[in-house]
Amino acid sequence: MAELKEFEGFAVTDVSDCTNVTKIKFTPKTFEDYDVEVKIKACGICGSDCHTVSGQWGHVDLPVIVGHEIIGEVIRAGPKVSTLNVGDRVGVGAQVWACLKCENCKAGEETYCPHLVDTYNAKYADGSTAYGGYASHIRCHEYFAFKIPEKLKTESAAPMMCAGITTYAPLKKNFTGPGMKIGIIGVGGLGHFAIMWAKALGGEVYVFSRGDKKKADSLKLGASHYVDSTVKGFHESLTNKLDMILCCANSSENFELESYLRTLRINGKFVSVGLPEQPFTIKAQAFTSNACFFGSSHLGNREEMIEMLNLAAEKGIEPWNETIPISKEGVKKGLEKNFKNDIRYRVTLTDYEKSFN
Amino acid sequence: MAELKEFEGFAVTDVSDCTNVTKIKFTPKTFEDYDVEVKIKACGICGSDCHTVSGQWGHVDLPVIVGHEIIGEVIRAGPKVSTLNVGDRVGVGAQVWACLKCENCKAGEETYCPHLVDTYNAKYADGSTAYGGYASHIRCHEYFAFKIPEKLKTESAAPMMCAGITTYAPLKKNFTGPGMKIGIIGVGGLGHFAIMWAKALGGEVYVFSRGDKKKADSLKLGASHYVDSTVKGFHESLTNKLDMILCCANSSENFELESYLRTLRINGKFVSVGLPEQPFTIKAQAFTSNACFFGSSHLGNREEMIEMLNLAAEKGIEPWNETIPISKEGVKKGLEKNFKNDIRYRVTLTDYEKSFN
Repeated sequence: MAELKEFEGFAVTDVSDCTNVTKIKFTPKTFEDYDVEVKIKACGICGSDCHTVSGQWGHVDLPVIVGHEIIGEVIRAGPKVSTLNVGDRVGVGAQVWACLKCENCKAGEETYCPHLVDTYNAKYADGSTAYGGYASHIRCHEYFAFKIPEKLKTESAAPMMCAGITTYAPLKKNFTGPGMKIGIIGVGGLGHFAIMWAKALGGEVYVFSRGDKKKADSLKLGASHYVDSTVKGFHESLTNKLDMILCCANSSENFELESYLRTLRINGKFVSVGLPEQPFTIKAQAFTSNACFFGSSHLGNREEMIEMLNLAAEKGIEPWNETIPISKEGVKKGLEKNFKNDIRYRVTLTDYEKSFN
Repeated sequence: MAELKEFEGFAVTDVSDCTNVTKIKFTPKTFEDYDVEVKIKACGICGSDCHTVSGQWGHVDLPVIVGHEIIGEVIRAGPKVSTLNVGDRVGVGAQVWACLKCENCKAGEETYCPHLVDTYNAKYADGSTAYGGYASHIRCHEYFAFKIPEKLKTESAAPMMCAGITTYAPLKKNFTGPGMKIGIIGVGGLGHFAIMWAKALGGEVYVFSRGDKKKADSLKLGASHYVDSTVKGFHESLTNKLDMILCCANSSENFELESYLRTLRINGKFVSVGLPEQPFTIKAQAFTSNACFFGSSHLGNREEMIEMLNLAAEKGIEPWNETIPISKEGVKKGLEKNFKNDIRYRVTLTDYEKSFN
């Protein structure tokens, strides 16, 4: 197939008007020996997209094309590609490159490679820009393109590429066995995945959320217990009960971190994949009654990604997902819904063939 | 031997005049089947003593007799005591009781027993008060009295009972093998022990301290590297290098927590046994570049205590320790030196036989 010199995509050009995208043509990175070229079919809209286009996460290299929950078809494979073939349906997540040589990469921790390249708002070492999935195509190293099991729908697989793996990886890394008691804080895009993964892995799931609005959904998603965290003393009956908490909340306001820590067993871990803008304030004293730990996690490695996709296929796990055909209007609508938090629990852009030829 | 009905000790009676102690008589807890009665020979002065008597740590049940780095001789053993004999030299640390039945206790985590009784400023379930080691005697369950190896001097073993075990236990729990790169922040009572333990376990020790005042001491104690943490960018050459950090600093002021976190390897742990009054402020984002963890730790279990004492005996480890004979004046002097942080690096009260008959 003839080389495509240009791709097309919906770009944000102004952070102060960040839901109005413009269709632009752009030059992709140089096609290299280990690269695949993917014709995009669908892309989830992630909270990170909103944080980036609005400038909340700092510098944005404009124009930016966001989107890192990408599913598409391999239409070209470099001469050294060994894991994929033309025609394969693949997913690309929030990372498109790592050196694969450093100590972290060699330990299978490529998401912590100091040289990693994010899928968008990032530069490759040669200076070329990485553009995301609100676009016709993407090129990337085969290591970061994952074959999608047949049983998974394209629009269901898309949100797994970031929200899915972000929640799956820390749960899997810390999973100690069936019956493990897992707390999930916050029921949104991340949290609803977390409940499903924790249940699918064999955990007993405790959901914490403000009020009762998310109770029915939580139980349907797989929770065994639902705790309204606005109730005073909500944590008291759970002292030292939970093996782990995965925090998917994206606000630290009125957040009773200490109360949550007390629910953990000795050496239990509180892993926050929610990334509130405001910091938590923590006293070391809050960790002395159970030697618990606070931490976070970044995406998941290749092995975890493949495991997650297989688990989803095997157990029939699908996100609660709304699809919107991609277009200037569709992107605007999707981003706005995200900014307003008017989503239960994920939005995916589809119908790429109507916007891109 | 006839039962002693009363013990004597130096008590703080007023938190606003907390270095002036009064010699009082007090009734000890009821002597039970598993209890030993210890005639005290020496007691270290711990930062906790100062925090307690000054009311900085909240409510104080006056009069309070502090001290939880106790060495003495068993002069009486209950009928069910099986681990100790009259005449044994033993140490008693910061905990004198746990239920030994709950899940935490059964897992060998008795320092996290929800029913634990601290050595002072605490009550037993029957309402009797626990008094500490600035006293003639102490009674406690044999589980919390540890035979001191012959090779250890009494005054050297004393500070190990709290400062020693507080630093030894988290280092041991997280020790991964010889050559492990261990950061120690702060060189004081805790930190100087931490350097010695980390070295004795086989670690490569990186000490962080403000300025160069503690450099010579740190190297002498066993550090291989000394880092002045007031130098801008002090952490940069250490990115992802350390397996663990044990933070022994007792102030969070101008504390560059994020910089320290960056020095950790993937999944590395920052364990703060220093307990600053002011909280740290932490963003979850600071943990995403290496999936590191922040936590704390409380004392150490029986097994760790015994291991630590044996390690100290075997390797000839001794704290840098000043001794002061116990008396009204001696206690005042010792507490004041602690409040002024005029110690390198520990003070132990001795010559008990001159004050108590």
